Formats: sequence, C-alpha cells, structure tokens
Amino acid sequence: MAFAPALRVISTHVSGYSVSSAYELRLVRETVREDVHIQLISPYAPPSTIAQLSSSDAHILNSERQLLSQADSCGQHPQLGLRLNAGLSFADDDRYNPGRPHSKLGVPLPLINSIFSTNPHLRENLSGFNLHHNCESNDFRQLLELATRVSHECRDALDAVDWINVGGGYTFESDETHDHLRAAVDVLRRHKLQVYVEPGAAFVRSAAYLVATVVDKITREGREILILDTTVNHLPEVFEYQFSPDVLGAIDEGDYKYTLAGCSCLAGDLFGDYCFADEKSVGERIVFENVGDYTTTKWHYFNGINHPSIYRVLTDGRFVLEKEFTYEEFAARNGGNTYAAV
Amino acid sequence: MAFAPALRVISTHVSGYSVSSAYELRLVRETVREDVHIQLISPYAPPSTIAQLSSSDAHILNSERQLLSQADSCGQHPQLGLRLNAGLSFADDDRYNPGRPHSKLGVPLPLINSIFSTNPHLRENLSGFNLHHNCESNDFRQLLELATRVSHECRDALDAVDWINVGGGYTFESDETHDHLRAAVDVLRRHKLQVYVEPGAAFVRSAAYLVATVVDKITREGREILILDTTVNHLPEVFEYQFSPDVLGAIDEGDYKYTLAGCSCLAGDLFGDYCFADEKSVGERIVFENVGDYTTTKWHYFNGINHPSIYRVLTDGRFVLEKEFTYEEFAARNGGNTYAAV
Repeated sequence: MAFAPALRVISTHVSGYSVSSAYELRLVRETVREDVHIQLISPYAPPSTIAQLSSSDAHILNSERQLLSQADSCGQHPQLGLRLNAGLSFADDDRYNPGRPHSKLGVPLPLINSIFSTNPHLRENLSGFNLHHNCESNDFRQLLELATRVSHECRDALDAVDWINVGGGYTFESDETHDHLRAAVDVLRRHKLQVYVEPGAAFVRSAAYLVATVVDKITREGREILILDTTVNHLPEVFEYQFSPDVLGAIDEGDYKYTLAGCSCLAGDLFGDYCFADEKSVGERIVFENVGDYTTTKWHYFNGINHPSIYRVLTDGRFVLEKEFTYEEFAARNGGNTYAAV
Repeated sequence: MAFAPALRVISTHVSGYSVSSAYELRLVRETVREDVHIQLISPYAPPSTIAQLSSSDAHILNSERQLLSQADSCGQHPQLGLRLNAGLSFADDDRYNPGRPHSKLGVPLPLINSIFSTNPHLRENLSGFNLHHNCESNDFRQLLELATRVSHECRDALDAVDWINVGGGYTFESDETHDHLRAAVDVLRRHKLQVYVEPGAAFVRSAAYLVATVVDKITREGREILILDTTVNHLPEVFEYQFSPDVLGAIDEGDYKYTLAGCSCLAGDLFGDYCFADEKSVGERIVFENVGDYTTTKWHYFNGINHPSIYRVLTDGRFVLEKEFTYEEFAARNGGNTYAAV
C-alpha cells in the first residue's frame, strides 16, 4: 500500500515506514516528511537506493553475501539490519510463506550463528534484525512461537543489537490472542530490544471499498451472472489467489444467487458466487469490502480498462476525489504519442 | 498488448484492430491513424465508448440483453456484431476458456437461434459475428471444429451477415495444421463471410525479451537460488498461472541447476527451476524469452519496483530506448505530491 494520502493519514500513528524500493522510499519522504524514519527491506537494493538512506535509517540485508560485502564497505552508513529466517511456516499458501522450504527471504538461524562464530565483528556492525514470517495472520501465538525460537537459538546475536522488526502480516482483527503479542514482545525485550511491528494491512485493509455497478445480467445454464463495470484486474489478488472478496450485503444462504463477473474479456474474470436477500438488477451497486491492501499497488490496465477513481470519505459522509486516472497516464505508460508531446 | 510502438510496427500487416475499452480505442487511433478500422469487443461498453466508433467500425455485443437494447436505439451507428458462444472448450485452464460452463462471454447458439426465430428483425441489424474460443492454441483443428459447429447450428444467421471474427488465441507457431485453418475459412466463406482473425499473440509474443541481472546467489537447504533484479510482477501471468517462462540458454538437464527468484518481498516471487550448462554468478544476465504478450499490459508496481525500460532492437543490433518509467509516473499513480505540482 503506497497510496500517498493514506500514508499521510497514518503518519501520526507510526514511528516510521518500511519500504522495499527507491520509489517507495521517495514517496514516503515526499508525502510524510523528509526526516521520517525509514527501514529499507528487500532481497536486493541497488547502491543508488541505499545511498538515499540517512544515518538514522536502516538498511535490512537479506543474505550472508550482502552482510559480508556491506561490512567491508566504507563511508556514511545507514544502520544495518539483517533479515532472519526461522524456518517456521505459518501461511497456508507457500506463495506468501517466508518460511517455506528453500526460501529466498532471510538467513537461516543455524547459518547466521555459524557466520557470527567465525566472524564476530560482523555482529558488531549490525543494529537490528528483521523477522517477518506471517501473512494474513490473526493469531499472535505464531509470533510468540517465533520470538521464543529466535530468542533461544540466537541469544547472543539478539543481545548484541538494538532493535528487532517482527514485520507485518498481522490483521489485528481480533484481540483474542493479544496476550500472546505482549508475551512475544516481553521475550524479545529480555534482550533489551526495541520491537517494531508493521501493521500495514491492519491500517488499510478495512479502510477501502470498491464500488461497482451491475451493467448486464445474463443466465447461462441455469446460473444468473451479473456483469459489473469493474474487473478482477482491479483486485489482482482475487485472481492470483482465486478467492472471493467480501461483498456488502452478501449472505451465506439466500433466495438470490449470482455469479459476480468482471467486464474484461478474460473468461476467468470472476469474483465468485454470492447470495443476497433481494434481487439484483442492472444499475444497482455492488460494493466490495476490505480491499485496502495491495489493490492500488497491483491493479493494472488489462483490456485498457481504466483504474477506479479514488475518493476519501469524510466523517460527515461527503466524498472527496483524491485521484482520477487519465487517458494521458495510460498512453504514457504504453509509449503513446501523448507522452512524447508532454 | 497495447504498446504503441508495436501497434505502429504491425499496422501495415493488419486490416484493423480489436479493442476492449475507450483507452485502447483512443490509443490505436492516435498511434496508427484516425480512420483505422476498429472492432470494439467487451462484455460491456459504456455509451461514451460506443460514441467514439464511426459507421465503418464495429461494436460487438456480448449478450441478448445488449442485442435487444441496441436494436431499439437510434442515431448514427457503428456496425453491430454479436459474440457467439459455441460451448466448445479448448483451453486446459477454465480461467482462460471462453467455452467454460456458465461462461459470461457471448450468446449460446441455441439461445440466439431462438431469439432470431421470434425476432427476425434483430438478425437484420447485425453485420457480423465474433467467435473467440481459443487461448494459446497451436491447433487449427479446433477452429475447424468451431466453424463447422456454428455453420451447422446457425446457418441462417451466418447467411444473414457480412463478416465473422474468429478471434485470437492462436500462436501460429507451427504450420502443421494450417490446412485446417484454410478448411475452417472455407466453411465460413460458404456463407459469403469476410473472415477476420486476431493474431495479436502471434505477432508480439516472441518479439520481446526481459533482460535481468543476477544480483545475489544463496544456497538454501541444498538448492542454489539466483536473485534477479526483476520480479514476477514484471511478468504477472507467470505468477497468476504459475508457469515457468522460457529462459535463453536453459536446458532440460545440466550440471548447474538454479531457482530463479525475483527481488520483491513476496516469498512466491519465483520464476522456476532451470538448468544451465555453465555456472551462473552475480552480475551475469538472465534473459526471459517470448514475453511479448500481456507483459506491459499487466505489469504493476508491487513493492514500488519500477517497470523495466523498453528498448527496440534495430536490425543492425543497436538498441533504441522506447520508454523509460519515471518516479513522477509512479508518484502520480499513487496520489503523490508530484502529481499535484504538475
């Protein structure tokens, strides 16, 4: 989620931002403030991106190779962090499971212990660790298991640094396991660590709705299909992970059952099957809920269908247009003449 | 594929363009020429898009509802076409199978026959049909089966119109079944039809390469992983359909086996496992082949990682920069300040 107005809204509630690229870094600085605290985390960051970090920012390395090469470089440095991989799998889909077998993310705990035992000076160059193993989790028992594992296996390493970032992937949707969050933080604080967490999805997921209109209604082999003036390409994770997004007013069982379909030419441009208490007709609204994370980041122009306009809803119910996507942006992206004429 | 310089290159080889939206339509007109022949095909096109069509263009309707409502409208018209659905499945993945059960695409043959028998005037309003049932097919026996089916089941309807567009989805990579292409066209021409085909993928797929560099090399549980300075989000269909794209120099069996991984934070940002005859090191190139279709249309900014720059390769081997994506475009897309200042 890199939508600037949202970054601004949450800025008074966070101590800084994790970014994964030069563009995210610059957007945060320009949107929030120049001296905002940044943690740059990526499997790879080019030197030109690292050069944009100040000495109070952190660059979180991803591999032992990066650790060895960074330690030998000289000049003005950001703080150095290192991503650890505890080998624990909590996500049910390996596509978003950092702890998957043969993971490219982070350094396994036995390997980092081995490296530090032969190169103790490398540990002294580090200010912190990153430990991000979750995705869509609502269960802080997982974080407690993770903290306990790392505290046990890498005690000396944790004692040697100042902070740990336990990453994102927690929805904070239920407070049933918040005791385990506190317990996990306590485990880490025994090493005198400042503990960071990245509540990105928790901030933005439920903050956004995608409002669509029914533009056609057909029946095919007994199934009623509502064609919408949107597409799964506005919510690409729906298509990537083949799940059905939440719809306002949809119920588990109801007299009116519809397949909600997007308006692109892709046969699989389908949101899923939904039941409603009332009949739906052409012209009516369909509202998708909880679409605040990854939507604007991943949506694309398949079929040349424009991105939705983005409105902010004020507390008094008014709508304020934040961003409308123009033909000129589309043409520029596609190397069109309009770009050359600008 | 809506990349303007490519549209221009193929313009002397085609009789027109199929578009799916107002933005594609405008890009074609601005890029090729104002009076280029357009066929607009989409499950839904708003009136403002239809209004951009000239009387020599065609608007291909998708449903019986659209057919009934269009027939009642008045004023300057483009030609009207109708998408038919013959209920034949050729694609092995229903996500891109127009003939899938409960398909949203086109009108089933028995239904259109029934409509025409009770409303014969509707047939007279039509100039042509669309019949697009394929995806990634290299076998024109499928098209022959399709043409034969429609010719048999909808003879009177075909006799009443001027043209038929058999759509895209053919790779033209082998000429083994070209006799069947000719036979299919012959079947349709018996109805005195002009036959269109959309060889989009055939034109552009093998025309593009994605050139990446190895930026890190790690071993995890015995598997060597090469981190690249690109990501599956530059080739989103690799992630959506979980296939491994072609890589230049990769062989079926070889001494050097690597997992090729993208540089985003997504655990599943992986291109697949590949064998090479020689060892690969940090700094070396990895070149993905046959990535010309859907790449620029679908790539997105996950992690804020910029899109690749696009170069044209001249016949003498020189490279000419066609499009470089700027931070300002990224910031504008994300509602950043830079946009407001333009």
